[in-house]
Amino acid sequence: MNTNVKSAIQIRLNCMEGQVRGVQRKVERNEYCDDIFIQLEAIHSALSAVGKLLLSMHFKSCLLSRIQQGDETIVDQMLETMKPLIKR
Amino acid sequence: MNTNVKSAIQIRLNCMEGQVRGVQRKVERNEYCDDIFIQLEAIHSALSAVGKLLLSMHFKSCLLSRIQQGDETIVDQMLETMKPLIKR
Amino acid sequence: MNTNVKSAIQIRLNCMEGQVRGVQRKVERNEYCDDIFIQLEAIHSALSAVGKLLLSMHFKSCLLSRIQQGDETIVDQMLETMKPLIKR
Amino acid sequence: MNTNVKSAIQIRLNCMEGQVRGVQRKVERNEYCDDIFIQLEAIHSALSAVGKLLLSMHFKSCLLSRIQQGDETIVDQMLETMKPLIKR
Repeated sequence: MNTNVKSAIQIRLNCMEGQVRGVQRKVERNEYCDDIFIQLEAIHSALSAVGKLLLSMHFKSCLLSRIQQGDETIVDQMLETMKPLIKR
Repeated sequence: MNTNVKSAIQIRLNCMEGQVRGVQRKVERNEYCDDIFIQLEAIHSALSAVGKLLLSMHFKSCLLSRIQQGDETIVDQMLETMKPLIKR
Repeated sequence: MNTNVKSAIQIRLNCMEGQVRGVQRKVERNEYCDDIFIQLEAIHSALSAVGKLLLSMHFKSCLLSRIQQGDETIVDQMLETMKPLIKR
Repeated sequence: MNTNVKSAIQIRLNCMEGQVRGVQRKVERNEYCDDIFIQLEAIHSALSAVGKLLLSMHFKSCLLSRIQQGDETIVDQMLETMKPLIKR
């Protein structure tokens, strides 16, 4: 993995762990649902950001080099790999 | 565009037009919200299916040939293109 | 149905039908995928807006009156009804 | 908060914290993107499940009692509260 992107992803994941603990505290203390829903939405957004960073890294390493080596089957594999990220 | 995939996309879009008209009729007749919500969800799924078919076609034509011609900038363009499809 | 909200919903649905036809034309003419993906995303947003309007109307008519009549079972029914709208 | 639902939510959140740490480990070890994307998707689903449990609890406590006390303004507040959960 590219080290810059990798550390960007790790920073986001550490932040996400903190967000999940924040929700745990809010639930523990019976805080307002409004705040908890907004926090859950923030975690959805963070997941999306991590997904996009990983996808970008995966494209630039794996996809590019495999196509340059003449392997076209990677395109179908990549489409399969991406499926969990696509909005339904 | 690959003609097989293109006609698969067109069939789905015609179906989606019918689904939207189905919702219009249900609203017109004040039908149960439950049924309307399920129908709206079906349109979300149909949009996702069209998005995946288009993405697959775009990868196999544009992305593949541009990389094979030595143009690596297409990778960033493709990531930008795909953004509206990514789950948030 | 409240007639104001009903006509707001109908206007949005007519607009959505136009958006679906717009995508059909773009696919027919082999237009840029970027534009088509943005249009698909706009239809997702329109679906969400229709869902919220319907939900609001449903809450203000059905949910409110049923609870005021002493029927608490409507709460579970409503949660079931809303499920297709919840982000996954 | 209802204690049964509260502990169901807490169990899910603890599990989610473990899932986030699982992704951190996979990224640290440069594991396959496919596995990481599936894990991100699992966290999206867990978030959705927590949101639905909280919503259910909020409806059965806050919404119900406020309407029974004659406060109809809670309906609009509830719709606002739920917005971050609605699919876009």
